[in-house]
Formats: sequence, structure tokens, C-alpha cells
Amino acid sequence: MRIKVINGNTFESMTQGIDQSAQAARFPDTEIVTTQPKAGPESVESYYDEYLAIPGILEEIILSGDEFDAFVIACWGDPGVEAAREITLKPVIGIAEASMYVANMVAARWGVITTQHRTLDMIEKTIYKTGFSHRCVSIRTTGIPVVETETAREATTDALEQIGRLAIAQDKAEALCLGCAGMSGLDHALEKRLGIPVIDSVAAAVKMAEAIVSLHKQNSKALTYQVPSPKPIKGFPAHMQPGRFSANSDKK
Amino acid sequence: MRIKVINGNTFESMTQGIDQSAQAARFPDTEIVTTQPKAGPESVESYYDEYLAIPGILEEIILSGDEFDAFVIACWGDPGVEAAREITLKPVIGIAEASMYVANMVAARWGVITTQHRTLDMIEKTIYKTGFSHRCVSIRTTGIPVVETETAREATTDALEQIGRLAIAQDKAEALCLGCAGMSGLDHALEKRLGIPVIDSVAAAVKMAEAIVSLHKQNSKALTYQVPSPKPIKGFPAHMQPGRFSANSDKK
Amino acid sequence: MRIKVINGNTFESMTQGIDQSAQAARFPDTEIVTTQPKAGPESVESYYDEYLAIPGILEEIILSGDEFDAFVIACWGDPGVEAAREITLKPVIGIAEASMYVANMVAARWGVITTQHRTLDMIEKTIYKTGFSHRCVSIRTTGIPVVETETAREATTDALEQIGRLAIAQDKAEALCLGCAGMSGLDHALEKRLGIPVIDSVAAAVKMAEAIVSLHKQNSKALTYQVPSPKPIKGFPAHMQPGRFSANSDKK
Amino acid sequence: MRIKVINGNTFESMTQGIDQSAQAARFPDTEIVTTQPKAGPESVESYYDEYLAIPGILEEIILSGDEFDAFVIACWGDPGVEAAREITLKPVIGIAEASMYVANMVAARWGVITTQHRTLDMIEKTIYKTGFSHRCVSIRTTGIPVVETETAREATTDALEQIGRLAIAQDKAEALCLGCAGMSGLDHALEKRLGIPVIDSVAAAVKMAEAIVSLHKQNSKALTYQVPSPKPIKGFPAHMQPGRFSANSDKK
Amino acid sequence: MRIKVINGNTFESMTQGIDQSAQAARFPDTEIVTTQPKAGPESVESYYDEYLAIPGILEEIILSGDEFDAFVIACWGDPGVEAAREITLKPVIGIAEASMYVANMVAARWGVITTQHRTLDMIEKTIYKTGFSHRCVSIRTTGIPVVETETAREATTDALEQIGRLAIAQDKAEALCLGCAGMSGLDHALEKRLGIPVIDSVAAAVKMAEAIVSLHKQNSKALTYQVPSPKPIKGFPAHMQPGRFSANSDKK
Amino acid sequence: MRIKVINGNTFESMTQGIDQSAQAARFPDTEIVTTQPKAGPESVESYYDEYLAIPGILEEIILSGDEFDAFVIACWGDPGVEAAREITLKPVIGIAEASMYVANMVAARWGVITTQHRTLDMIEKTIYKTGFSHRCVSIRTTGIPVVETETAREATTDALEQIGRLAIAQDKAEALCLGCAGMSGLDHALEKRLGIPVIDSVAAAVKMAEAIVSLHKQNSKALTYQVPSPKPIKGFPAHMQPGRFSANSDKK
Repeated sequence: MRIKVINGNTFESMTQGIDQSAQAARFPDTEIVTTQPKAGPESVESYYDEYLAIPGILEEIILSGDEFDAFVIACWGDPGVEAAREITLKPVIGIAEASMYVANMVAARWGVITTQHRTLDMIEKTIYKTGFSHRCVSIRTTGIPVVETETAREATTDALEQIGRLAIAQDKAEALCLGCAGMSGLDHALEKRLGIPVIDSVAAAVKMAEAIVSLHKQNSKALTYQVPSPKPIKGFPAHMQPGRFSANSDKK
Repeated sequence: MRIKVINGNTFESMTQGIDQSAQAARFPDTEIVTTQPKAGPESVESYYDEYLAIPGILEEIILSGDEFDAFVIACWGDPGVEAAREITLKPVIGIAEASMYVANMVAARWGVITTQHRTLDMIEKTIYKTGFSHRCVSIRTTGIPVVETETAREATTDALEQIGRLAIAQDKAEALCLGCAGMSGLDHALEKRLGIPVIDSVAAAVKMAEAIVSLHKQNSKALTYQVPSPKPIKGFPAHMQPGRFSANSDKK
Repeated sequence: MRIKVINGNTFESMTQGIDQSAQAARFPDTEIVTTQPKAGPESVESYYDEYLAIPGILEEIILSGDEFDAFVIACWGDPGVEAAREITLKPVIGIAEASMYVANMVAARWGVITTQHRTLDMIEKTIYKTGFSHRCVSIRTTGIPVVETETAREATTDALEQIGRLAIAQDKAEALCLGCAGMSGLDHALEKRLGIPVIDSVAAAVKMAEAIVSLHKQNSKALTYQVPSPKPIKGFPAHMQPGRFSANSDKK
Repeated sequence: MRIKVINGNTFESMTQGIDQSAQAARFPDTEIVTTQPKAGPESVESYYDEYLAIPGILEEIILSGDEFDAFVIACWGDPGVEAAREITLKPVIGIAEASMYVANMVAARWGVITTQHRTLDMIEKTIYKTGFSHRCVSIRTTGIPVVETETAREATTDALEQIGRLAIAQDKAEALCLGCAGMSGLDHALEKRLGIPVIDSVAAAVKMAEAIVSLHKQNSKALTYQVPSPKPIKGFPAHMQPGRFSANSDKK
Repeated sequence: MRIKVINGNTFESMTQGIDQSAQAARFPDTEIVTTQPKAGPESVESYYDEYLAIPGILEEIILSGDEFDAFVIACWGDPGVEAAREITLKPVIGIAEASMYVANMVAARWGVITTQHRTLDMIEKTIYKTGFSHRCVSIRTTGIPVVETETAREATTDALEQIGRLAIAQDKAEALCLGCAGMSGLDHALEKRLGIPVIDSVAAAVKMAEAIVSLHKQNSKALTYQVPSPKPIKGFPAHMQPGRFSANSDKK
Repeated sequence: MRIKVINGNTFESMTQGIDQSAQAARFPDTEIVTTQPKAGPESVESYYDEYLAIPGILEEIILSGDEFDAFVIACWGDPGVEAAREITLKPVIGIAEASMYVANMVAARWGVITTQHRTLDMIEKTIYKTGFSHRCVSIRTTGIPVVETETAREATTDALEQIGRLAIAQDKAEALCLGCAGMSGLDHALEKRLGIPVIDSVAAAVKMAEAIVSLHKQNSKALTYQVPSPKPIKGFPAHMQPGRFSANSDKK
């Protein structure tokens, strides 16, 4: 089984961090290729960043043709995940979604800890959209930019520990999702410090991808996730034009 | 007051149709300029289309500098509206949101009628996200592609009338939002045929934009809609790089 | 266009304050007449006050015959708004509803600041009924009675600033609705002090009324807002008997 | 124990019907006095009717002084119930609320059957406000006016049976609330015909009132249901002025 | 009328305490028999305890044959209440449900105060399941085990007072449900100390049971609460085998 | 990795069917042992069945000591799953939960198809509890008892196909969860006939269990899922007494 993990941003050292988490999480027979979009922001910390990241993320899927059995979108917020499911039959898993499912399976009440304060609304809307507003009891932010999350590991870990303690003590969170792909790999240290399950969202998504592939499930083409109708899309290369990419829709 | 109405797709005859509705709806002192993105799909009928439309929509806002007092995103689903509010201080109104507010003000229970069957989920999620799942009692689709909505006016009107009648009779809808910018201008004919308020979403958004401008309100920069932090965004032109566009943030 | 703004209470100096806000908010071609019910409480601070205010508010609409194009009910909580939509074809806008729509258009998360502590439940239920429980993140009260809100402007402003700061700092509110018609006109001072959009709910409702009139939309008479059936209503004057007032239902 | 049952309208033969149901439902030691407001509509079939009914309902409570231990508001929709709880310490029970609690206790999924089609929204909002949108699976209306519900008993029963059968077969309702006080007394006949619990809402409310009185519970005066502050209320008699009626607030 | 009150646990002195509350709450003509399951935990403080308590609770109902007119399950969380409604026609009332209905009837916003911190999720889910997440504004726990709640009355009362004060001051709760059958009888003392309605959940359930019996309502056998189909259930005695117990289903 | 799959009922041929699905779904290195409780009903088709099944299910976990790395509860409705998470550190996955996560990952709108009509409420409540009421658009039942689901495979498959077609055509479901462990193995046939993803819930849960184990996550012992406090539980064997079973709580 081959899974392509797509970093949501174009920050290469984060791609490497994500790869480490993904490789560590995979089953032995799974092959993981971690990549990053050709186009898009260095980090996703705003809706603007998120929306400019999506075409590049989708391109990564289109370019893959049939080489992969599943895709992971490694950016909390799951940018473009519905579109991704339209353009391929292969399962596409968002790390936000995956981490919340895992949290649900090990804790009655959980929270999300993440980076910049301004992402509070993005996090909250992602949870609301998924339907877990009654399960998620805490969203807390360090205020540390995504890039520093990658480069200043110890400071980031300390800050996450601090808000994690508040999530446990004040909000009664019993597990925590790491709400940024850049935090991949910090789960073990934080779990040790905080004493509750801390979920590496990238790792969670790899496991979900393996699960869906192994179940031989593919994206439903019944209605919502049908292949986009052929039509000109200005300003995008030929390989991104609907009707031009195969969307492996004849495979099923 | 100058309002820029941005067609969500790159289909020029739809831009013209939107312009007609917008011009018809404006107050005398309002100047409307209707435009379409340089890049993006000919119609928005899938999540894929929607996400590839967003960068072009946002670019239209960035390129406007300080020339406009407000923006309307003329695509039901309000693609990119949160990001748009980050990159400008000027009000940005989505036509979905606007039409639902208008529906709420004239009817206790309302519905949305729109194009392709596959957009059902997109419509439903837009309503859920806004918080009106208990007010919207009907979503019905004609199955007619967006482009034909523009080019085959009579067939479209007939088909909308037909699903409109079902929405009234079976779902007890008391007003209907036209769930596609391409349906702009059909509200009067449908209102006459159906006997209930039918809301031209583009017109609704123009009025909302005029309202917010007249109230001297601008996008809150307190947290979520702060200007995106400067950072490189690969594959996008200089004028779309955060830190490069002014975001008229010094105006307030 | 002529809009009648109806103060929800019978406190004349508040009617004047509301009028100032409404006049300041109107477009040049709009004519505003602000009035107050002949009957009803001096201020609305309880459910009892609210329910006794409603017949007088409705009477103001009935007495207007066809002189006005729209009505604004200037009392946060929108007392009687559904009934008002039954007895006239002309749009009727509540200031609570209007202010929340405006808040949604400029902020991701917003709050309501208002008068007496006891109104907390009334405010909360109004928001829940509208569907915005997931958008409204803060409701805070000064404890100052409505009448003093009008008469002690500086103390009121200071108190609102104080709870506004808490709403921003603790609840992460990014815009604030002024939850009482008596606070009309304080938005500019508070906006300056707090640095986030503060919404004068009366002004917001005037703009919504202008919008709906301009869109030529009227109350749906399909089901819920049909004209009340003729029947005797004891204790109310002839002009308030269903069947006696025209409800301008023959206009459409 | 003395309970005052207040018909929501001023239709005397309905008051008698309500009284019969209430008397039949009371425990032997309970004394029931059924009454109707001096002012208000002959029937409640619209929001307009409902709001004009409320002052008269509240007056019935005020005039009762300390003669009663509890009040029942006999109109599905519970008009004015929050205000009623402000002006007295004595429990005030709405028949809508009461019937829904009873339905919850005997059925997993239940419905409401009622009169005019136009009341659909009023019924739905009452259920949503209470929090039972996930328990109520059916709302169906006969189209028969309230007054005929009282005067044409057999036709009403037949029509209720018919929509009741649809509620069971199509919506899988397992119990039905009679959504109008005028239907009091029809529960037994309908229960026999339909084979599921049919709840006489007046009877249900009498039992709830007896329960609360027997528990020695009174309306909380902590915040929301505090006695209204003294203030002039124009157009209402002296005995309805806050500060003039005792609200038996010194009793506790 | 004969009501069987079933303590959810097997702690005899708690059964006695429950009996005192139940006897104090009953109408003169009601006969109350309070009992405890033969099997089950000494106290219910975890999901494990709760699930092991349920078979014994159900057995108490089955063994009662036709001797009782209604049953009360005296454990906050209402363990097994849906199953109980399947195996008998007689009304079965849970004390959680009953106390919440009573709270709704006397207060706009209420809370639950209870025992061990770990039960927070159980309490919250019970409220969510019932549909009152928007009415319940506070859940607070003393940390005192259930057994001590019974044996250390003064310490328990002091601790409840303390969290009750926080519920009032910080969460604006206006009434409080005692979230454990072991707290039965403490309502009067707490009501005196806290000044708001405090609801003895056992007493509340007795009143609800009397109400339903008096209304001649029984569990709907239309769908969900049908008698369980005959089938072998290993490890349970003959009298608990479906098909063997009569479920008094022939009575209706 | 060793996973114990626990059939929720005591019907041996269903245990075998579950085992086949589980074995087919496991990764090569996973060892699956499928078992059934010593005590409990032959099938779970009512709340009564469900609650009597739970102690036996929990016993299977307790008896396993440290031999297994995870548990699957193979009964749609996930009976006892919260309690199971208290008594072991090892992940416990319910098949309902697992199948809904999988459905979410491959379809925008999905449904559940299952056995007896009476289980409608159980299914609906399970979905509501999880938070997916806005994702699940269809619940349909064949009316075929669980046991026949196992023994009459072809009739069951035909009946499921039939309701599946309705779910797709009328409710616009785009994937279907098989809502009964007895349907394990029918997913491929149904997928072929219906053309949309059909999810074998047992297989889904095996994959989720493998995922959580591989992520080294265990049940949070922070609050809700703490090991039950030692206390006597009458009528249950020594090995089921809290304090006697180790709950492998010292492993972490």
C-alpha cells in the first residue's frame, strides 16, 4: 500500500517533520511518500493561507495519477478535502478529522491545542462542521507561529504543555489533539508531561488511510463526490482541467 | 459608494447577468462594477470548482486597492469570504449569506432552489455553517448545469418553477432563495408564477453591502480576520503575497 | 421610501434617541418617522414588560395603514415581529435580528452587551431562536436599567466599555451588538474605545429595512404570515380586530 | 390545592371543554377553577392572536392574588409563560410543555397534531425552543379552525384520526400530543382508534401543576423570573402596573 | 395507586433515604414501596457501575408483575429506562428526566450538582440526550463519593452549598437539580442556604409517576417500546427471559 | 498485535460470521480472536436485549487480562463501550462508531440500513449521541430479525438491497453502514448491487482498533474513564468486582 502525505504548506523542514511522524506511524507494508505542494504558503495560519494552499494540495493528488492508494492532507482544518475526494477514487484523509476520531475513541471529552491565537475560529468551525461541538471541550492556542513550531521545538513543547495543563484543569479535557501538522512528533513528550493521550494528527491520519485502503473503500461517486464536469478552468495548467485528469474513475 | 461585485466564475455572459441584477438592485448613489476573476472555472458546480475559484476571487479584491467600499462574492456558497475579510477592511458579502438573511426577514420557513443535483451537500453545509438548519426546510435542484442556467433561460425558469412548486407543496417553504448567481434576474418571473417571495441572491448581497458601508462598519481585525502575516506564498504573484498588499489596514 | 421606526417602549426621550440613530443611518431618500406605542411599559427589562409592549407595537403598524414601506421594531428581542409580519405585507425588521446579521458580516465571533442582568436569558433565547448560538460567544450585562441607559450616558458608556473589554479579552468577541435600543448612538464612542466593530442595532435595522424595500420583497403570505382570520378580539379597539384592518393584503 | 386553569382565548364553550378535561384529570383534593381572560381573541391561530391573548392571560394571574397555588396556561404554545413566572411565585405550567414531557415519558418518538395549517411554524418553534427537535418526529395539521374543533367534535375527531394515522405510518410517531386546548377530551377516542398514547395537553398540565405544588417548588427569583421592576405601563389598568401587584413575592 | 421506587444501587441505607423522600413526596392515596435490586453495585459512580446496575433494576420491574402502577428508577442518569419501558406497560420514570422537567418549569436556566468529579461526562451526556443542553448552564461536582453522600450528611450538604454558590454566581444557575439519589432529602436545607429552588430528583420522579398514572397513560407499544421478542438470554433466570414474563402487554 | 472481537450476542453462528469478517479485514500481523459473551441474549433487537448483553461483554474484557491489545464490541449501538474503556487501558472500539467514521471519510451524506423496524430509535440515538445527525440522511430497516439476517443470507441481501435503493433514491445517501454485526460479509454483494460504498461495520472496527494500537494510544484515565472505584457489586462474580480486576492500569 502506498500513501501520499501532502503537507499543507510549502515549508520544507515541516514536510520532513511530517514525514518522520508518518513513517513512524505506518504499518511495515505501507509505503509513505511525503511531499509538499509546488505552490502555496509557507505556513497556514489564516483563511487566506488556507485557501491559497488548496490548489497546490489538489495538484499533488492529480499529479499522482494511480501511483498511490490513498492521500493524507497534512494540515489541521483539512483544506480541500471534499474537492480531493471528487478528483480521485482513492481515499483522502484530513488530519483534523482523523485526530478527532482517534480522540473520540480514547476519551469522553477532549480538546485541541494549536498555534496562533487567530486560528481559534478556524479550529472551532472545523469541529462544528464535523459534528463534535459536544465532545470538544477546549481549544487553546500558544500564540506561536507555525514556522517556529517547527524550528523552536523546546519552546513550543513548553508552551503546549502550559496550555495543555489549562485544558485539563479548567476545561476537563481528557485527551488533546495537536492542531497543527508542525507539531508532529511532539505527542510523546507531551503525553509524558501531561499524563493524558496526546494525538499526533498526522500519525492518526496515516492510520485512517491505511484502514480505508485495507477495507477497499473508495470515495462514493453517487452524488457529491462525482468527478467534476469537464469545463475550462482559466489560469490553471492542463493537468488540472476537469476532463483532462482521469480521476481514476474507471477503476471501480 | 462603490461596490465591486465579483462573479465567482469566469463565464462572461454570467458576469453580465450578475451585473444587470446588481445594477437593478443598487441605490442611485451606489456605483457597481461587476467583474470576474482572471483565473478560475467557467462555472462552480463542485467543491473542486469552488476551491479553484477562490484565489481568483481574492485576487480581484487585492487588485482593487482602495477603489471600492465593499465587495460582493457572487457565488452561492460564499467561496473564500472569510479570507476576503482578512485581506481588506472593506465589507465583503457573500450572496448565500445575504439571501438567507433576506429570507429570514420575510418568511418563517424558506428553501433554496438551485442547479445540479450534486450541489445538494454544498448547499446544505452552507446553511448548517450559517446556523439556519432549522429555518431552511427545503433544498431542491433542477439538475441543469450552471452554464445552461444562463443560456437556456426559459427552460431554467420552467424547471425552477417546477421544483419551487414541490418546495411549497411538500416542504411548506414560504420563500425561496435562488441558489446560483446565474439565476439572477429570474426572481420576478418566478415570484409571479409561484406566489411567494423569490430572492435574487446577488441583489440581496448588493443591499447588504450598501447597508454595511452606510453603517461605516468594517471587518473586525481583533482576531480571526487580522491581516495575514507576511510570508512567502509560492506560485502566486507578488501582489498576492501577504505583506505586499496593503489590506488597507491603516485606514481605520 | 418611508420607514416607521417603533420604539418598543413608551419612554419619550428614548424615542428621540432612537430617532437620532435612525435618521443618521438612513439613506438620503429614505424618510424615517420614529414613534412609540400609545400603550406599553416605560422600558422593556423583563418578559412581562415585553409582552405588554407588543399590542402597542402592533397597533402602531395597524394605524399606519399604507403610509409606510417598512417597519422597524426598536427593542432588542424583536417583540412581536412574527405577528407584525402577519398584519402587514410591508417588511418588518427587528433590531436584534438586524444587528446579528451585521455582526455576522464583519466578525467571525461576536457578542451582545446590554442592560440589566436579568435580561441574560431573554438575550440568549433570542440568539438561540435565530440560530446563532455558535457565532455569539459572549453575552454581558452592565446591570444598569434601561432608563438610565438613556439618561446617564457617560456612566452607561463607561460600563459598556468595561464589559466590552471582558467580552474581548475573556470570550474572544470580535464585534459587539448593542443589546438595547436605548444604547443607540453609543456605538461610535465604544468603537473608538474598544477597537472593534460595535453595532448600533437601530441603525442596523434601518439599513435592513431599506434593503428589503429596495428589493421589493414583502412578507410571504403562503402560510405562517397569512393575515389573521377575522374573529372577535375582546378588549381591543375596532381597528385592531382581524378582518377590520386591511393588512394591505390586496396590494401584492 | 387550588389550581387556576386559564383558557388562552375568550371562547366560552372552549373554556367549558377545558374545564371538563381539567376536572377529570385532577386529584380528588385538588380544586380547579377554569377561567378565560377578559380580553383577547376568540381563538389563537396566529402569532397575532397569541400576542394579543397574553396580556389577558397575565391579568388572570395578577387578579388571583394568593387564592391559587398554581396556574395552567391552556393554549398550546404556552403564551406568556415566562412573564407569568415573573409576576407570581406560584408555579405556572404551559400545556405545550407539559404534554411534551408526558410524551417523552411514554414514547421514544412522538408527534403533535393540531388545527390550522398555518400554525405549523408556531408548533415547530415551540418544540425547538424547548429542546425536543430530536424527539418530535411529526407535526401534522387538520386545517380545521380552532372554533370548529370545539363545535364540530366528530369531524374534528375524524380529521385528527386521519392525520394521526399518517403520523404513525409515515413519520413513525409512537405517541401524539393534542396541539390545541380545544381538543381536550378527544384523547380517549383517538387513543382507541389509533392504538397509541394520545395526550390531552390540558390534563397533562394539571398533573404537572399538582406535581410542582406538591413538591413545594416555586418560581426561581434568582435572575430571569424576578418580579418586574416598578415602572409605568401605559394603557394598562392599575392592577397590572409593576410595583402595584404584590407578586406574592414576600411569601417565600 | 402503587408506585415502586427502585434504588439504582444496592446500598441499603440509601434505599431508606430514597424511601423517606419518596414517602414525603407522595399524595396521600399513593402507596410507595421502595426497594433495591438483588444484584448490582453498592453505588453508581461510573459507566461500569451503571451498566452492572441495570439488569438488577429491570429484574425488580419484572418481578413486580402487575402489583404496581408505575416505577421510578432512582439513579440520576436513568439507567435502563428505555428497556424498562419495553418490559412493562406501566410508566417508568427516571429521576434525572423528572428533575430536569421540574427545573424547566420553575427556572429559565438551571444546573446539576452531584458527587464524584468523574461523573461529569455521564451527567452531561444525560442532559444532551434529553435535549436540554441550552437550558442547563452548570454542572458541578463535590468530589464526594456516593456512599459518603449518604453517611456524611453535613459534610455533603456543606460541599453542595459551596458548589451551588459557584453555580449561581459564576454560571447564573437559577435552580439546581440534585444529581444523585443519595442526596434525597437535602433539598430543603440547600434551598434555605442558597435561596433558589433545589430539586430532590426522587421526589420529582414520584410526582411524575403519579401524574402519568393518573392520566392513564402507558408506554407506547407502537414501535420502540414493544415487548422484547422471545429469545434465549443466557445467564439470566427464567423470569427474565423474554416470552416468559408477561410484560402485562395484554392489559391494554 | 492481538485483538479480541466480542460479538454482542450469544448466537454462535453469528460469532463465526463476525470472525470471518474480522479475519478478512485484519492486517497480516494482527491476530484476531472472536468470541461471544457467556451470558446475554441470542440477538440484540431491543434496549432490553442490549442492556442484558452488556455485563457479558464487559466480562469478556475483564477475563482477557493482558492478553489482548484492543477490543472490538461487535454490536451496532456500541453497548457498554464507555464502561469497557473504564475497565481496561486497551482501546475498545464499537462497530457503530467505527462504521460512521469510515462513512464520513468516503461520503458526504450516508445512511444506516439494518434489521427490525423497532431498532429505528436505537440507531437514531446512537447517531445523535455521536454527533452525526447532520451527516446521516437515512435510516432504513428491513424488518428481518437479527437471527434470520444470519441464517437467511439471500433474503436478507435482497431486502437490504431494496431499502438501500430507497436510501439512495429518496434520501440521497451516498454510502451505507450495515447496522448489524450479523450483516458482516454482505458489504461486497451489496456494494456491487447498489454501486455505492457499503461498510461492514465489524471490518471497520477492526481497522480502527489496529490504528489506535499502532498509535500506542490507550484510554484516557484522566477523569471519565478512570478505573471504577473498589466496591461490592452483588450478584456478579469475584473477577468482575472493581478492585479485583487489574484494569491493567499499572501498565501505562
